[in-house]
Amino acid sequence: MIYSFANDYAEGCHPSILRALAETNLIQQAGYGDDAYTKNAEKIIRELTNSDADVHMIAGGTLANLTVIGSVLRPFESVVAASTGHIYVNETGAIEATGHKVEAAPSADGKLRPADIKPFLNKVRGHHVVRTRMVYISNSTELGTVYTKQELTDLYTFCKENDLILFMDGARLPMALTAPSNDLTLADIAALTDVFYIGGTKCGALLGEAVVITNPGLKRDFKYHLKQRGALTAKGRAMGIQFDQLLRNNLIFDLAGHANRMAAKMANAFAAKGYALSIDSDTNQIFPVLSNSIIPQMQEDYGCLVWSIADEDHSVMRFITSWATPEDVVDEFVKKLSGE
Amino acid sequence: MIYSFANDYAEGCHPSILRALAETNLIQQAGYGDDAYTKNAEKIIRELTNSDADVHMIAGGTLANLTVIGSVLRPFESVVAASTGHIYVNETGAIEATGHKVEAAPSADGKLRPADIKPFLNKVRGHHVVRTRMVYISNSTELGTVYTKQELTDLYTFCKENDLILFMDGARLPMALTAPSNDLTLADIAALTDVFYIGGTKCGALLGEAVVITNPGLKRDFKYHLKQRGALTAKGRAMGIQFDQLLRNNLIFDLAGHANRMAAKMANAFAAKGYALSIDSDTNQIFPVLSNSIIPQMQEDYGCLVWSIADEDHSVMRFITSWATPEDVVDEFVKKLSGE
Amino acid sequence: MIYSFANDYAEGCHPSILRALAETNLIQQAGYGDDAYTKNAEKIIRELTNSDADVHMIAGGTLANLTVIGSVLRPFESVVAASTGHIYVNETGAIEATGHKVEAAPSADGKLRPADIKPFLNKVRGHHVVRTRMVYISNSTELGTVYTKQELTDLYTFCKENDLILFMDGARLPMALTAPSNDLTLADIAALTDVFYIGGTKCGALLGEAVVITNPGLKRDFKYHLKQRGALTAKGRAMGIQFDQLLRNNLIFDLAGHANRMAAKMANAFAAKGYALSIDSDTNQIFPVLSNSIIPQMQEDYGCLVWSIADEDHSVMRFITSWATPEDVVDEFVKKLSGE
Amino acid sequence: MIYSFANDYAEGCHPSILRALAETNLIQQAGYGDDAYTKNAEKIIRELTNSDADVHMIAGGTLANLTVIGSVLRPFESVVAASTGHIYVNETGAIEATGHKVEAAPSADGKLRPADIKPFLNKVRGHHVVRTRMVYISNSTELGTVYTKQELTDLYTFCKENDLILFMDGARLPMALTAPSNDLTLADIAALTDVFYIGGTKCGALLGEAVVITNPGLKRDFKYHLKQRGALTAKGRAMGIQFDQLLRNNLIFDLAGHANRMAAKMANAFAAKGYALSIDSDTNQIFPVLSNSIIPQMQEDYGCLVWSIADEDHSVMRFITSWATPEDVVDEFVKKLSGE
Repeated sequence: MIYSFANDYAEGCHPSILRALAETNLIQQAGYGDDAYTKNAEKIIRELTNSDADVHMIAGGTLANLTVIGSVLRPFESVVAASTGHIYVNETGAIEATGHKVEAAPSADGKLRPADIKPFLNKVRGHHVVRTRMVYISNSTELGTVYTKQELTDLYTFCKENDLILFMDGARLPMALTAPSNDLTLADIAALTDVFYIGGTKCGALLGEAVVITNPGLKRDFKYHLKQRGALTAKGRAMGIQFDQLLRNNLIFDLAGHANRMAAKMANAFAAKGYALSIDSDTNQIFPVLSNSIIPQMQEDYGCLVWSIADEDHSVMRFITSWATPEDVVDEFVKKLSGE
Repeated sequence: MIYSFANDYAEGCHPSILRALAETNLIQQAGYGDDAYTKNAEKIIRELTNSDADVHMIAGGTLANLTVIGSVLRPFESVVAASTGHIYVNETGAIEATGHKVEAAPSADGKLRPADIKPFLNKVRGHHVVRTRMVYISNSTELGTVYTKQELTDLYTFCKENDLILFMDGARLPMALTAPSNDLTLADIAALTDVFYIGGTKCGALLGEAVVITNPGLKRDFKYHLKQRGALTAKGRAMGIQFDQLLRNNLIFDLAGHANRMAAKMANAFAAKGYALSIDSDTNQIFPVLSNSIIPQMQEDYGCLVWSIADEDHSVMRFITSWATPEDVVDEFVKKLSGE
Repeated sequence: MIYSFANDYAEGCHPSILRALAETNLIQQAGYGDDAYTKNAEKIIRELTNSDADVHMIAGGTLANLTVIGSVLRPFESVVAASTGHIYVNETGAIEATGHKVEAAPSADGKLRPADIKPFLNKVRGHHVVRTRMVYISNSTELGTVYTKQELTDLYTFCKENDLILFMDGARLPMALTAPSNDLTLADIAALTDVFYIGGTKCGALLGEAVVITNPGLKRDFKYHLKQRGALTAKGRAMGIQFDQLLRNNLIFDLAGHANRMAAKMANAFAAKGYALSIDSDTNQIFPVLSNSIIPQMQEDYGCLVWSIADEDHSVMRFITSWATPEDVVDEFVKKLSGE
Repeated sequence: MIYSFANDYAEGCHPSILRALAETNLIQQAGYGDDAYTKNAEKIIRELTNSDADVHMIAGGTLANLTVIGSVLRPFESVVAASTGHIYVNETGAIEATGHKVEAAPSADGKLRPADIKPFLNKVRGHHVVRTRMVYISNSTELGTVYTKQELTDLYTFCKENDLILFMDGARLPMALTAPSNDLTLADIAALTDVFYIGGTKCGALLGEAVVITNPGLKRDFKYHLKQRGALTAKGRAMGIQFDQLLRNNLIFDLAGHANRMAAKMANAFAAKGYALSIDSDTNQIFPVLSNSIIPQMQEDYGCLVWSIADEDHSVMRFITSWATPEDVVDEFVKKLSGE
């Protein structure tokens, strides 16, 4: 295989992280997120979000999702996600294992709008059904799409009018915020959600997601939830150092922007070659519709996923780029594709 | 403060790990533990344990404990731990949050013996009480003590006679296996438990515990449990590389042995000075009984924990050393102590 | 209001039950289902099902559902229900509260067929998604429809071929088995499911559902699950006496047949009057489509439920009859309807 | 066997209940606790407790305990019970199955006092341990003892000072309130707890416990919890009618008083005969210490339980009387005992 576009966690981490790990290695630090590096990363996040948010580093996305959602909901309350949402389709029932129903709203583009959520609020049977209390969105979505400022404002307003908590899964938030069509800032995200996270794993870190809680009502006792779910890391420094590096000088956004640009190059090449793109994504995931006849060779050369069946002769494929995707590899891919 | 002996996770990781992270950084690898480094670490573990164990890397101890225990027990089954056991006293109800009762057997030295467990098996009320199905031990224990081969054999035999699963929390297993009083090998541990883990976090890694499942009945579908609990790490390589390094050339045991020796130096110094050691530990945690009058200065100079009240004038203190504790710091500590 | 057709639990219980309660009242009996009446009811059920089933009486349907499902599934396993299924829409997340995802298969008539379940088995992402392990059906369904012997045979065969447990919610099983279109016996039900229950609450009892476990693998330790879920009733006699009476001389089926006949009279009257019946039900729930203009008066005279909106001017209504619905009330209803 | 003193749920219910069930049998009523009889029982309870409490009928004690406790605690919070408490020893981990740790305070007489609870509040490890948030007591206790007004006042005051919810399991509350040593009224109980229940199952009903919530903060959404735990009974009337009867004209207390008097007669007879009573109980459970040599004959004649081993030659036995225990049976028992 020449290069894999199967996912965005195939390489290690940005070299500046490795340098920082080495430089700080023998400096003793407090455990469980009370180290100086985590504190500094938290400070940067509060500055970037223009907020007094609480920040907690968690080792992975599913662990972040189940810890956050489990901390917010009372036993009979549910969370709504898009039918494509990670918590609904790809976490082995992690949310249900905390006792809560995930309700799925059909969504063609991976995004949720107030109209998608309304049906869950009009339950007439009262205490015979779960009460919807939380909305889970991802940005960028599982389909690579991003929320506009207007869309997020509408959704957050709707949530506040209906006593709903809005939670954004930001595993690829840096890609969203650097997408060409994006008009949101990190401060907007903080102002227009109750809790969200900034993904590290897929954006230049070895591992780690930085959960940012802006709703004061959700801050209390969060470390108890972290500990109970196994999400409180003894050497919190290992994540603190990474976010401290990634958040300096815009690094994490530079890395995400690179991933987006590499994907755009590929998308353009597919389009130029006459392939449809089944979803209009301008982040690091693209979904070209390929003829089944060329897929075996494509997969031999480049790791990529058959996403869904388009018709008898065509499949929707998924290609993902990352902060680490070399531009020359992409250029060669484009050249090969054009030459075919 | 001169140096903290408050815990064994205050520094980063062994330098060879940082080197390996750098060297492998841009090599693409499969995610979720299917990378080459994890595979190699697994292979070494199977060799060291002389077994065909399944191995899974988990980011932290509590997450490992709740994932393993939650995967084994049926809803009405319970796990017995020593009254000092980490899952009973220090995990914010993480096991109960998976739906299972932790039953505590009083233990003065942190270890469990068949006689401690028997009372939980003689429940006469049948389905009106939980059924004890699992025994959780730690080695070294939370009090720094270690199991002998005879003790572990007796316990495992008892477990097998009573249809009990034996699970060893090995957050400090390398320290146990390098303690002067130890007569167990890693292969013994594998043969005399159903599932255990080799701690990385406290033994030279940035983070990570390697769960080793030898009981074939417990292997099936374990990755489903991992994913559901948020314990399946996308960049599994981050832990695989660490264990791959630590397990080569006995490194992890060398590091643990160093920690033990540093603690022994300190224990000897305390004893020489006439201080009692409240627990007979030969691993990296020691528990000297100090006069309350000297504790404030001691804590100003060296991080250490008041463990319990001994009498009106004395407290039991806990000092912990690690793979990273510099010998000259210990020597200076000893010199200061002797000179007082 | 003249009479309520809003549900089938508005009256007490069949008089023979009250007589039996009085006659046995001061006879001492063992608790927790070990009384003579429960034992006798169990014996009758084993005869009627031609099986050596285990039988357990549970106070209500939701409690039965959550206890049974929670006893069968491992943590990462899920249950599939029709999108109309009681556990999916009407139990306030009771199943999710035991930690398990309920997956909904779209169903127009409330029934599930192999083709509805297949999509849940073809998950390609392995341990990143729940594993479907159980199929929940109800008979009669929430829409009043019933399974034919061929349908149930096909479904059960499919389940066995795919290692799926088939569970039938029988809250209205007596109505199903006495429906004109039914060709199943209680013995067929036992042979073609792994576990099911015979509803008492809606079929002549004050309360109680008799859970019948025929799959030997599901029998073990069931009383532990009962106790843990709060479903083990101290005075089990209170349910045992009821089922003992209801199961003698076919009483429960006579009562269910009466309910069905009353509903059929009403359905015929609606049809004669030119109203469509939105679902083809021959049990005790019928769903006529009424003009919105007549609904207020209808609801003033007779309790009945607006089930869904048919079009701008019409609504689907639900009328339910029971074992206790007086025939003269139905006749009067029919006369009034015809005369309108 | 002449008569069983093994438990207080061996007979049916008070005849007035059977009469009321018959008289109301065919009167249609709303389901799920909205029937007229339940409403009336609730009204009586509010009068007797001089409160505006919310009242909910639940079919059994374990179901009541798990629903109440599960509704109050946040995920990381725990409940303290006496080491003899029903939720700690006799409910198959029902509370843990809702995700919460039950912490046991050693208690010789089955009662809890502030000093017993204090140790659980002084946890120094913050979010590494569960937070104690609820105190569970039973009155009468599992050992037949009762709380005095002073004791309950002290405990409630302590709870309020420490932000703890006080929950009283009243499965045998009517016996407690009619014990000779009692100085509490139902209004006192309501004023000195946050939530409690009045047992029906052991006090003249077929089944049912009336949960009384006086703390306004605990009232909200309780029916959602009921439904989710399977504790919302469709024919709520079946319990409403029973409590409606039992609470009229002091009936439930007359029945409990009878049980207590029968036990006192037996206790006096044991004492007169020189047998020690291992616990000083003046309710319907007594614990005489008998010579092992007479136990087999005793158990052949009268159902009774070996409670614990007293010494090599003696055992502590438990005898329980009920509202239904015939006085002539007790008199004969006393005569036989005296004559031996």
